[in-house]
Amino acid sequence: MTTGKEQAGIDHSRDDDAYALDRNTVAAILYAVDVDDRDRLAELMEPLHAADIADLLEQINPYDRARLIRLYDREFDGEILSELEEGVREEVIRVLRPDVLADAVRDLESDDVVDLLEDLEEPDQETILGALEDAERVAAQQALSYPENSAGRLMQREVVMAPEHWTVGQAIDHLRASEDLPEDFYHIILVDPRLRPVGYVTLGKLMGTKREVPLKDIAEEEFQTIPIDQDEEDVAYAFKQYHLISAPVVDQDGRLVGVITIDDAMAVLDEEHEEDMLRMAGVDEDSSLSDTIAETARGRATWLLVNLFTAILASFVIDFFADTIDQMVALAVLMPIVASMGGNAGTQTMTVTVRAIATRDLTANNALRVLVREISVGALNGVLFGLLMALVAGIWFGVPMLSAVIGVAMVLTLVAAALGGILIPMALDKFNIDPALASGPFVTTVTDVVGFFVFLGLAGMVLL
Amino acid sequence: MTTGKEQAGIDHSRDDDAYALDRNTVAAILYAVDVDDRDRLAELMEPLHAADIADLLEQINPYDRARLIRLYDREFDGEILSELEEGVREEVIRVLRPDVLADAVRDLESDDVVDLLEDLEEPDQETILGALEDAERVAAQQALSYPENSAGRLMQREVVMAPEHWTVGQAIDHLRASEDLPEDFYHIILVDPRLRPVGYVTLGKLMGTKREVPLKDIAEEEFQTIPIDQDEEDVAYAFKQYHLISAPVVDQDGRLVGVITIDDAMAVLDEEHEEDMLRMAGVDEDSSLSDTIAETARGRATWLLVNLFTAILASFVIDFFADTIDQMVALAVLMPIVASMGGNAGTQTMTVTVRAIATRDLTANNALRVLVREISVGALNGVLFGLLMALVAGIWFGVPMLSAVIGVAMVLTLVAAALGGILIPMALDKFNIDPALASGPFVTTVTDVVGFFVFLGLAGMVLL
Repeated sequence: MTTGKEQAGIDHSRDDDAYALDRNTVAAILYAVDVDDRDRLAELMEPLHAADIADLLEQINPYDRARLIRLYDREFDGEILSELEEGVREEVIRVLRPDVLADAVRDLESDDVVDLLEDLEEPDQETILGALEDAERVAAQQALSYPENSAGRLMQREVVMAPEHWTVGQAIDHLRASEDLPEDFYHIILVDPRLRPVGYVTLGKLMGTKREVPLKDIAEEEFQTIPIDQDEEDVAYAFKQYHLISAPVVDQDGRLVGVITIDDAMAVLDEEHEEDMLRMAGVDEDSSLSDTIAETARGRATWLLVNLFTAILASFVIDFFADTIDQMVALAVLMPIVASMGGNAGTQTMTVTVRAIATRDLTANNALRVLVREISVGALNGVLFGLLMALVAGIWFGVPMLSAVIGVAMVLTLVAAALGGILIPMALDKFNIDPALASGPFVTTVTDVVGFFVFLGLAGMVLL
Repeated sequence: MTTGKEQAGIDHSRDDDAYALDRNTVAAILYAVDVDDRDRLAELMEPLHAADIADLLEQINPYDRARLIRLYDREFDGEILSELEEGVREEVIRVLRPDVLADAVRDLESDDVVDLLEDLEEPDQETILGALEDAERVAAQQALSYPENSAGRLMQREVVMAPEHWTVGQAIDHLRASEDLPEDFYHIILVDPRLRPVGYVTLGKLMGTKREVPLKDIAEEEFQTIPIDQDEEDVAYAFKQYHLISAPVVDQDGRLVGVITIDDAMAVLDEEHEEDMLRMAGVDEDSSLSDTIAETARGRATWLLVNLFTAILASFVIDFFADTIDQMVALAVLMPIVASMGGNAGTQTMTVTVRAIATRDLTANNALRVLVREISVGALNGVLFGLLMALVAGIWFGVPMLSAVIGVAMVLTLVAAALGGILIPMALDKFNIDPALASGPFVTTVTDVVGFFVFLGLAGMVLL
């Protein structure tokens, strides 16, 4: 249920589809496009938030998309561009009339313009830059000079500051007299005479405090500045860890150059999570549902190729024991179980490790203890499932020694899975490779190779 | 680099360990605990944020933890409790002296108290509730009466509101005269005479606008209210989608009952991501690095048991073709490659699908198109890797028909992987089961069974 501006077209029921685009609205919009009804289209789109319009554009096919944009045209808002995912955004920029595009871009705030520009190819960048006022263009170009994914790219340049020695009354009078306060700000940053931030005061506290009180006395206790070249992932972590709402960004000399607000940090956090999730599954993290079939296939193929190599490696191990299998085909039947359990246990440990590295919960302080714990867990579950599987194999094939072999193989494979699941991501992190990126195939290679080797090797020694 | 309150003990270098606890500081703290030096401990802990102290407590072993807490005692801040993960938090509550615990809890804001209470067992809950002032206790108990993980649990009850017909001047005068403004607030919520929110004004805009302007004229265009029983996951989605900083919470009659701020939404978003990530890997989402070995092993065992059943199912398929394998052991060598490629491709599609469902990017509007696309991608990569694997098998075993069989099996398995990877999470979502929770084992069961069946079945028909 939403009051205020009535949000037609968005599902506000309380089930899983809350906030998803309503199917009937989408159908009505596409119908308006079909019959070229500009007024009806504007009327249907009017209640939608820019983020929802962006979702709509992403969900319809490219042909409908182009027709919708041409018909919507004059109404097209810059914020929709900000909300679109990369691939669709480039397409939309090419479909929009140059004057509509220019209008749309001029409406955006400085950090949104940068966000828009950085994902675009050179010619599209030029189009957008050309549409900006001179001052804005220079500002955007300077922001683009900071490293990609750095705090400098993320910050707004508009800041509200006050000398540290001011009182509440002075600050309020100054704000009330200012002509060009930023759209959204929540804090006043206190600076020393060399423009270095020394603290901040929330607007709420400012409103609730007597005029004569010095700002210093109501400054928040916790205070974090962000170096301009800090990686945006670390910025997002700082916001989450320290519950920051906004944080001043400083240059190499510690001077205030901008401010990052929590909504941008939240967007980064969400992107980083998506990246981790996709990387762990071996999906190109820049892919999206609106990519073409060829683009998607290519994005997935890299990882499948890596997996093919590691699978072949595991098959070499099997081939090495081909004679053993030839003498007892039950081994071929059972060996995938050992490998599968190892792969699963390894993935569990790996996922916990990757997450713990990201949240700084796994550090040099407790690495050894966590390692010992994971090995113990692997051994414990190895014994449990080893016994269980020995029982199953015993009932299935009735060969006691085969039961013993699969039981022992299970224990050893699950211990190897624990070792691989924790040591591989930690090693990758040590070498500054994102542990999410490459852990998966390495861990399953270890578990497959160990699983097949131990099971078939033991079988060869004991059974034949 | 951090100015202001010097953050000793936290690594502020710009590499991956930014914001992680510094190893030397941890060592110094543990040494102070060892030699029972209360003053040195307080001095070392003083610059640390409550969130960092919580991390420290989580990272050290239970014995050191108890000693540290007893020595730190008088200084123990309620916020540290808020920041601790469940298991460690319960332990700490039992170690803290009752009067210290009472002091610590009384410092917290209403939503933090609720957050603390909801994870605790009955007796610990009573301890905390007993420590609160009467008014606070009643408020906390009411919050706990809302469904778990609902907006009602997440909101603060302290709200700042103004009648919709007021001017900027009236609002400023009212705020300046108020005695008990909340600690942090960023917006003034405009309400109609029946206390229903109709819009909001940011404090920044209030400061930048002339006294005589009606509040209505500077109200933000986009406005969302949150129903009190909405799931917190949907709340977090709304904050991210609509870039909300705070949002009013309303009861069934649309009346204002509280407010949720973005920092709480960000924490929920982060938790939901962690949950998805752990669930997809089959890890109990309530687990943590400080659980005991037995707890951890139990948390992992559930999923391993499910995996054991599905692995045995796949082995039945192999067993069905035992005679075929007996006649050509190369089949046993190659069959895991087909299954592994299928499992990988299926996981890729499944991860993309789970993520797209969570972000509302996959809806009834585009489901069919996405399905067709995934099948096409599966077929395309199936042909690519089928050809590649046929070549490898040809070189390896020199049996042309074996190459043909593995090539065709690869195509069919990768198409099945695409189908399973998209249809299984969509079906689970349809039945209101979290698609992240159960997709993994179902998808790999499909790919294993199809992979083994197609490969061995074709081989049986063609080769023997």
